Amino acid sequence: MASEGKVITCKAAVAWEPNKPLVIEDVEVAPPQAGEVRVKVLFTALCHTDAYTWSGKVSEGLFPCILGHEAAGIVESVGEGVTEVQPGDHVIPCYQAECRECKFCKSGKTNLCGKVRAATGVGVMMNDRKSRFSVRGTPIYHFMGTSTFSQYTVVHDVSVAKIDPKAPLEKVCLLGCGVPTGLGAVWNTAKVEAGSTVAVFGLGTVGLAVAEGAKTAGASRIIGIDIDSNKFETAKKFGVTEFVNPKDHDKPIQQVLVDLTDGGVDYSFECIGNVSVMRAALECCHKGWGTSVIVGVAASGQEISTRPFQLVTGRVWKGTAFGGFKSRSQVPWLVDKYMKKEIKVDEYITHNLTLGEINKAFDLMHEGGCLRCVLSAHT
Amino acid sequence: MASEGKVITCKAAVAWEPNKPLVIEDVEVAPPQAGEVRVKVLFTALCHTDAYTWSGKVSEGLFPCILGHEAAGIVESVGEGVTEVQPGDHVIPCYQAECRECKFCKSGKTNLCGKVRAATGVGVMMNDRKSRFSVRGTPIYHFMGTSTFSQYTVVHDVSVAKIDPKAPLEKVCLLGCGVPTGLGAVWNTAKVEAGSTVAVFGLGTVGLAVAEGAKTAGASRIIGIDIDSNKFETAKKFGVTEFVNPKDHDKPIQQVLVDLTDGGVDYSFECIGNVSVMRAALECCHKGWGTSVIVGVAASGQEISTRPFQLVTGRVWKGTAFGGFKSRSQVPWLVDKYMKKEIKVDEYITHNLTLGEINKAFDLMHEGGCLRCVLSAHT
Ligand SMILES: NC(=O)c1ccc[n+]([C@@H]2O[C@H](COP(=O)([O-])OP(=O)(O)OC[C@H]3O[C@@H](n4cnc5c(N)ncnc54)[C@H](O)[C@@H]3O)[C@@H](O)[C@H]2O)c1
Ligand SMILES: NC(=O)c1ccc[n+]([C@@H]2O[C@H](COP(=O)([O-])OP(=O)(O)OC[C@H]3O[C@@H](n4cnc5c(N)ncnc54)[C@H](O)[C@@H]3O)[C@@H](O)[C@H]2O)c1
Ligand SMILES: [Zn+2]
Ligand SMILES: [Zn+2]
Ligand SMILES: [Zn+2]
Ligand SMILES: [Zn+2]
Repeated sequence: MASEGKVITCKAAVAWEPNKPLVIEDVEVAPPQAGEVRVKVLFTALCHTDAYTWSGKVSEGLFPCILGHEAAGIVESVGEGVTEVQPGDHVIPCYQAECRECKFCKSGKTNLCGKVRAATGVGVMMNDRKSRFSVRGTPIYHFMGTSTFSQYTVVHDVSVAKIDPKAPLEKVCLLGCGVPTGLGAVWNTAKVEAGSTVAVFGLGTVGLAVAEGAKTAGASRIIGIDIDSNKFETAKKFGVTEFVNPKDHDKPIQQVLVDLTDGGVDYSFECIGNVSVMRAALECCHKGWGTSVIVGVAASGQEISTRPFQLVTGRVWKGTAFGGFKSRSQVPWLVDKYMKKEIKVDEYITHNLTLGEINKAFDLMHEGGCLRCVLSAHT
Repeated sequence: MASEGKVITCKAAVAWEPNKPLVIEDVEVAPPQAGEVRVKVLFTALCHTDAYTWSGKVSEGLFPCILGHEAAGIVESVGEGVTEVQPGDHVIPCYQAECRECKFCKSGKTNLCGKVRAATGVGVMMNDRKSRFSVRGTPIYHFMGTSTFSQYTVVHDVSVAKIDPKAPLEKVCLLGCGVPTGLGAVWNTAKVEAGSTVAVFGLGTVGLAVAEGAKTAGASRIIGIDIDSNKFETAKKFGVTEFVNPKDHDKPIQQVLVDLTDGGVDYSFECIGNVSVMRAALECCHKGWGTSVIVGVAASGQEISTRPFQLVTGRVWKGTAFGGFKSRSQVPWLVDKYMKKEIKVDEYITHNLTLGEINKAFDLMHEGGCLRCVLSAHT
């Protein structure tokens, strides 16, 4: 491509400071160095981790930065030594890398690759510990190794999944975070079996994907819990069979669920990020075998607690990151499942806007009716 | 037997009040009713759950009662409908029942039988919700469905395991609680694989049995942690390969272990009953897969806590009761393993006394050199 090896100047939404509206800037995106890939981002959705970092509540949040981690695009150019993707490939950037050679990747027990974390955790690239973004000479931090709120971004080669070029990028961008997180929490982390009773706390995108995952796993009861009763109608389409609004009950929600299920659920999932709900999700599990999976991300510094007796009597407390999926290996597989209509994606998209309208998109996230808002980056 | 169907008057150690020395009384033991078994207790050991209930720190502790739950004896007589044991059978009373028909037993997922819990939890027998023990007309509560600090006790038929009559009762009484708890925590609950790195917090009987279980499972490193450095010599014999005394370090113990193991252990076990140590045991686990098992019993009302991030990044928090062993099915199997010299038992017995010396035995528990003290009930 003509742009190969050159700095690209394009539009990006820059978060200069926590909690201040993002600013669409002309950003300079340096060419990819060895082991790096420059991606033309076509579509990006917003996820709560973006909103949450932007809010300044995360102690590790670095500013100025370019947020965004749920996207799809096309490889523009690749740095030295990159073999697995080439210009023109359709890709999904993966905030959870997969190098296939670190001790995490080789363990066969986790998807949490350690290869580039030291850099992505502090907003830079591995090679030179610097950013590839700048605005009027000021370097702008990367975010989660993806920074998809930009028309072009640079990612590590271990952080990009090559997908079927026939897949509609404006839809499959969602397979970069929320949907796989929910499906994987059920399939990989909890390993829900047919006939199980499942409780899903929080019916946003992640919770709905949990419900869908539980349905495909053959769960017999899928109880959705949300403080917004409007969520139930949508939730039914994703497999939720019963709905409980904690506000309709005086008893603690764990007790309501234990009563409703003759002793507790087999599996529960916290998809909100609220530490008291995390406790309730554990305590509504059945004695002897109930397993609770934490999916939501809590505010930094907050802690979960319970009586140890809850665990001694057989409950198991787990968590999941990106649903336990190995990103480069399994995101393409999820795209294929979507193409075969085996998993939903379109149904989570409630709004479509452009990158220029990103602040409006952040506002939408706080409205009950919004699941995912997809931004078109080049219109 | 001549005593069948009649009240037996025998010696028992009665806990009249929390924290007051036990009193050896002439206790009347009623004949077993339907589904009950009267057992002549020959040997009983002391476990921390006895000491702990006696101390009054357990809110559910009922007084006056006859404590004791780690014992072996011979069936004296059986009530109506009891088919699986008969007078003369050698048995180990099991505080964790196994009925094979309740939803817990049938689940295939837990050893926590629910059949007699409603009665054993409140110190009585199922049939008439009354005690079989009395002293001068005063009913004395049962404890854990076993009450082995008596020359005769009455238990539910689902709470007694028939064992090889050739097994030495003065040794295998230990297979009623502490040793199976430690072995099972490793084999059943954590399922430690060969080559794993294991941390054991607390090197009493339970912790040493964890070490032995880990050794037989092929663990490559077994790190013992205790505030009493004298424990290390003994611990080596049970498989502990390295010793850490938290008092020798300024850093939190979880950090010491993470540093020592290049990122954390694969499995950890809390065998103390201290909620801060439970947290440390979780947090010293390796990101991505480390699993921590709570074995110790904490003081009532105390809570465990951690940051949810610990779980979201792949650690798993579990607990175990009686090591996950199905009592009636597996205690006989453990006895057989002992007879084949595949597991240690004798090595945990540091003291032998008589039932009449029980208060001295409780005192011994607080001494560093004591693992298990076995009381002979009829001498
Ligand atoms: N672990 C991971 O890898 C991962 C990945 C993506 C997202 N997440 C996290 O998952 C969580 C959910 O994400 P989302 O996009 O679905 O969010 P969302 O805001 O769309 O959904 C949250 C839902 O929870 C409901 N809710 C809020 N408080 C509640 C309460 N006390 N009781 C019951 N319901 C309540 C809300 O009404 C809403 O429907 C967030 O914390 C996000 O950061 C985690
Ligand atoms: N879950 C179950 O089914 C089950 C069954 C039996 C016993 N238990 C419990 O297991 C625990 C251990 O039993 P045990 O008989 O081995 O007890 P024990 O008292 O013989 O051993 C405890 C050990 O922990 C050490 N210790 C104390 N505080 C410590 C600290 N802060 N850091 C490191 N080491 C410390 C002591 O020096 C001692 O060696 C008890 O809480 C008991 O109630 C549970
Ligand atoms: Zn996300
Ligand atoms: Zn890796
Ligand atoms: Zn015990
Ligand atoms: Zn049962």
